[in-house]
Amino acid sequence: MPRLRDLGLKIGHLPVGPKNSITDIEGVWVGHSSIHEGADIHTGVTALLPRAGHEFERRLVASAYTLNGAGEVFGISQIKEWGLIETPILLTNTLSVGVCADTAVRYLLAKYPDIARTDDVCIPIVGECDDSWLNSAWKMPITPCHVEAALQSASDQAVEEGSVGAGSGMITCGFKAGIGSSSRLIPVTNFTYRLGVLVQSNWGKMAQLRFQGREIGEGLARQFQKLNIRNRIAGSIIVLLATDAPLNSHQLHRISKRAALGISRVGSTANHGSGDFVISFTTAHEILRKSQDPLHHHCVLRDDCLDDFFQAAADATEESIWNALLASEACMGRSEHMAPKFPVESLQLL
Amino acid sequence: MPRLRDLGLKIGHLPVGPKNSITDIEGVWVGHSSIHEGADIHTGVTALLPRAGHEFERRLVASAYTLNGAGEVFGISQIKEWGLIETPILLTNTLSVGVCADTAVRYLLAKYPDIARTDDVCIPIVGECDDSWLNSAWKMPITPCHVEAALQSASDQAVEEGSVGAGSGMITCGFKAGIGSSSRLIPVTNFTYRLGVLVQSNWGKMAQLRFQGREIGEGLARQFQKLNIRNRIAGSIIVLLATDAPLNSHQLHRISKRAALGISRVGSTANHGSGDFVISFTTAHEILRKSQDPLHHHCVLRDDCLDDFFQAAADATEESIWNALLASEACMGRSEHMAPKFPVESLQLL
Amino acid sequence: MPRLRDLGLKIGHLPVGPKNSITDIEGVWVGHSSIHEGADIHTGVTALLPRAGHEFERRLVASAYTLNGAGEVFGISQIKEWGLIETPILLTNTLSVGVCADTAVRYLLAKYPDIARTDDVCIPIVGECDDSWLNSAWKMPITPCHVEAALQSASDQAVEEGSVGAGSGMITCGFKAGIGSSSRLIPVTNFTYRLGVLVQSNWGKMAQLRFQGREIGEGLARQFQKLNIRNRIAGSIIVLLATDAPLNSHQLHRISKRAALGISRVGSTANHGSGDFVISFTTAHEILRKSQDPLHHHCVLRDDCLDDFFQAAADATEESIWNALLASEACMGRSEHMAPKFPVESLQLL
Amino acid sequence: MPRLRDLGLKIGHLPVGPKNSITDIEGVWVGHSSIHEGADIHTGVTALLPRAGHEFERRLVASAYTLNGAGEVFGISQIKEWGLIETPILLTNTLSVGVCADTAVRYLLAKYPDIARTDDVCIPIVGECDDSWLNSAWKMPITPCHVEAALQSASDQAVEEGSVGAGSGMITCGFKAGIGSSSRLIPVTNFTYRLGVLVQSNWGKMAQLRFQGREIGEGLARQFQKLNIRNRIAGSIIVLLATDAPLNSHQLHRISKRAALGISRVGSTANHGSGDFVISFTTAHEILRKSQDPLHHHCVLRDDCLDDFFQAAADATEESIWNALLASEACMGRSEHMAPKFPVESLQLL
Repeated sequence: MPRLRDLGLKIGHLPVGPKNSITDIEGVWVGHSSIHEGADIHTGVTALLPRAGHEFERRLVASAYTLNGAGEVFGISQIKEWGLIETPILLTNTLSVGVCADTAVRYLLAKYPDIARTDDVCIPIVGECDDSWLNSAWKMPITPCHVEAALQSASDQAVEEGSVGAGSGMITCGFKAGIGSSSRLIPVTNFTYRLGVLVQSNWGKMAQLRFQGREIGEGLARQFQKLNIRNRIAGSIIVLLATDAPLNSHQLHRISKRAALGISRVGSTANHGSGDFVISFTTAHEILRKSQDPLHHHCVLRDDCLDDFFQAAADATEESIWNALLASEACMGRSEHMAPKFPVESLQLL
Repeated sequence: MPRLRDLGLKIGHLPVGPKNSITDIEGVWVGHSSIHEGADIHTGVTALLPRAGHEFERRLVASAYTLNGAGEVFGISQIKEWGLIETPILLTNTLSVGVCADTAVRYLLAKYPDIARTDDVCIPIVGECDDSWLNSAWKMPITPCHVEAALQSASDQAVEEGSVGAGSGMITCGFKAGIGSSSRLIPVTNFTYRLGVLVQSNWGKMAQLRFQGREIGEGLARQFQKLNIRNRIAGSIIVLLATDAPLNSHQLHRISKRAALGISRVGSTANHGSGDFVISFTTAHEILRKSQDPLHHHCVLRDDCLDDFFQAAADATEESIWNALLASEACMGRSEHMAPKFPVESLQLL
Repeated sequence: MPRLRDLGLKIGHLPVGPKNSITDIEGVWVGHSSIHEGADIHTGVTALLPRAGHEFERRLVASAYTLNGAGEVFGISQIKEWGLIETPILLTNTLSVGVCADTAVRYLLAKYPDIARTDDVCIPIVGECDDSWLNSAWKMPITPCHVEAALQSASDQAVEEGSVGAGSGMITCGFKAGIGSSSRLIPVTNFTYRLGVLVQSNWGKMAQLRFQGREIGEGLARQFQKLNIRNRIAGSIIVLLATDAPLNSHQLHRISKRAALGISRVGSTANHGSGDFVISFTTAHEILRKSQDPLHHHCVLRDDCLDDFFQAAADATEESIWNALLASEACMGRSEHMAPKFPVESLQLL
Repeated sequence: MPRLRDLGLKIGHLPVGPKNSITDIEGVWVGHSSIHEGADIHTGVTALLPRAGHEFERRLVASAYTLNGAGEVFGISQIKEWGLIETPILLTNTLSVGVCADTAVRYLLAKYPDIARTDDVCIPIVGECDDSWLNSAWKMPITPCHVEAALQSASDQAVEEGSVGAGSGMITCGFKAGIGSSSRLIPVTNFTYRLGVLVQSNWGKMAQLRFQGREIGEGLARQFQKLNIRNRIAGSIIVLLATDAPLNSHQLHRISKRAALGISRVGSTANHGSGDFVISFTTAHEILRKSQDPLHHHCVLRDDCLDDFFQAAADATEESIWNALLASEACMGRSEHMAPKFPVESLQLL
């Protein structure tokens, strides 16, 4: 299926990375575990390894931003307090955050036997969106095996998009959506930095949808009004943002806020029931778990250079949502609930 | 000059109030004092009285949100802490916040002689944007007389827009802009609430400009590239938001965040140097300064009803920015700095 | 074992409630499930039902404050966003938050079959402290049965204190501690409100300890220096705060911040590795899950009345920590790690 | 008059700097301008130059924390957003923030003629507390001359304490107080860092006062009950915190929060009407206003080292408040309002 750029459409003026995917940032690995069983079950887990599986020893500078907090990101308090990430990041459905967190703890205990013995305990990161329109979430279909499968399958390939992993049951403005990704290149004097975004996109009702600001949603809502689609204002969006630029946590926080502005360009007003979160990190520095030296010797970009990162964060988030929509096929879920395929021709007519 | 709706264009699906202005909220009064002297001076003061001048005794529930804090809103800490507004709100240029605050204190001392004697002290509210591209702000042209004139001229008329009051020296994406306003009607069961916005719009560079999301800025930037326009990413935006719906401070805070999403639809990514602030209040309740009753007996809207307010806040903010652009004529300022008039025909071609 | 007041000592001038316990607030129920197996295992779960088990239909106004976020409170983002609590609150050890959250979801699904079918999904609340000094937490001894047992055992009795439930493996400034509670009565004109606190106290190293500000820790540290006690600066504290006063979420947030000031009086400076969180709610209002009326008709206390609540929050938190210390016996844990009993005579000598 | 340590009393175990004053941090200069006229006028201005007057070109990493925001710190939004300080810091009374800000702008314009011409505009920093119990603040006695005098008199001498500068009309728990300062030395491996605090202390009512946690206030309140002292819960505290340790803005924010814990040890619960703010900065790095290099090459301390800074911030704040109390003589103010001298013998009896 075409991505947005395959349609000759683009967002913003910054160039994209080689894969136009969050895996353009070196060391960022992504894997999916999907569960589709009959009409009833459409769910899964997505795992992102920020440092190719070595994030526990070689921690990364990070930040997080909450646009609307009606959801759960397990571990977000620690990210905000320490400005660090030290575990994999998992995405799943709302009711399965517990099993994902529990499995991630066991995975880390197995890998690092010193945890909770001579070393500190660990708090993994797990985000969620609600897939209960299509998926019988109350059956709790996600098991530790699915979580481990997502972690094991992570790789540096371009992220598979659409109805996969944690995107399996996702809906955006009534249409089937899921995982999407995009990246940008940001030149600063004689160096080029990269910034990549991955979204789990599950927000809005059809009338809200905008393409590059054009209000296309109301027309589409009339066109699809006879289908049994989700037309409550519901859902959420999780944005994961990675960069290789040398930034500190305070700067990443400011960039994360701009990812939220990208969401709004697609029509979202961050509805009351939404869990809209951004988690961001940079691979430029390593904060070693143990060190004799009480000082970090880090370069950090001057704030004068941030505006292009702000632009890149908004643009890549906007494009990731479109890639999530375009990569997804129609889905008939539980109770004859529908999520139609986004009609790609509606963009080509613009 | 035409406002956006006079061009047959509209933002969102909610109806607008009778004046399509923040003064559609009963008791909200706005006045301007403008200073234009030769090419050199283009600045002024705008005053908003939240309760028709009685806000000190009959305080209003309020909130504030900082999108990017590279600016100053005098009094914002107290708004956030108490969730109240109890003074007029002034807008001006960056270097004149001091004189505005000082004059507002003297104005309140004269009106309420108990202040700092038997009663508490007072902290007025003053927001600002930087007009130093067009205006010789370093000459400090604003005096206490201008501040008083703005306060005295406040009325419930539809807000005068464009290069007036604190908008006198404002620029948006390179074009002359200033003050803009818009309002929305929000039906909730068998009642209709109102929400109004006033912006002091002074942000962005030309290439960023979007109309309803269409990226029109780069074309315009080529068209105007020979002029001596402000093409640094600079400036700020202050959004004042009023409603008559019974909301508490926490709900107003959430609504304020959505005004910020409206700014982004016009192309802003809230640049590093921006002071982007939203101040919001409701006229539905009065928090009397003195009371024997230790309890307030207030109705408050259920959170289920908030989504339309979120939409209204984003839509009215977006439309206010366009009204600020459309109401402003070209301006030649100090040092032959230019701010051209926004070419209205570029919207009509879309 | 004596509580602080049994020693003739008291904190502050406000009177205490009849049980001097968080269960003085009507409808607040607390239950424990403790696991002590040999030297190796000392852990458990504490459950607090804010509305006697009806909090899902009859939601409560709430807030949360993070003093230092190096820990996890599952569900905290939603509390902050909505200003509501709608589930039980569980406390446990750091590695068992996942199983507690998972079990709480299944408990709610069983009790409310509409969840995730016709109704929204749910996000329970789970706080934690690290008990791995005494407890072999890496063995993951907490199972769903323990979580259910804590929920089932909840009652309105005075809270059992010390090494029970989530307090089983807790340590405070090197001494064995755990769960503690206290309450205050707050007269406002002709009515008396109640405020209660429950702590899971697990912070600090011995040299930091202060009793009512006297720096008693260094002397104690010398006295106990030969024991194998936890002398890293480590640990955390969770404070649950309940009241029956009619307060809104914004006011509860401000009161929660003062609970944090109470922690500091016992010597804490909220160390880098601490997860120090306050969750607060009031039983004065019910926010029904479903309602035809778009308005709440709530009384709310005037802000003028808050100062006594600030005092009560700090005082009751301080006293709860002392009750947690005084109620706990010495414990020999895994790897011959020690947590001695706090020497009550050291207070009596002051 | 004796400082706390002259009485043989100390706070915490960390050593103090050579002057036990914020000016122990190299480059930190402080000056006062005091106005005492008859019984009626007791007010003034204190100026702190963070970089010996060069902070505009050689900006410093900074942060700010609001414990209770019922007050005004002009410029705080920009400190929080940029994590920088680039101007002097002024302290004054509540009604004079405007004139201080206006004068500071003119002072900077005179010193740096490029401001608002080819360079950006500037936003100075001005904090305040309310001195209207003793001072006829409504007479607005502070003029631009006083502000300039404070700026001109700044030096690296040990800070003059008590009823001087912005401390002239200050009261703490009913007793005359004002400016106080203290510092700490913090060894990290083979280097010793410094941290200094200056307070403008004006909070609380007598019954709240604690010395090192002992509740001494109620006894004192009985002793002084016949005097016409301020016994409303009123007032505020501004804490300025400087260090020479290489810290980033996020770390300074966390340290600022611990200064607030130090306030609580003296009995404050941050009353509803308080403006309790902490502003912190480090002199370890310079963020040059203009630079060809897009990168900063900064060392930053590992978070593992922060706990001693947390302790130092709380201890030095607590000691600064005591120094402010001990340095002040009794004052009879306007309307026969009294602020007695703190009875030093009440500490010596403990």
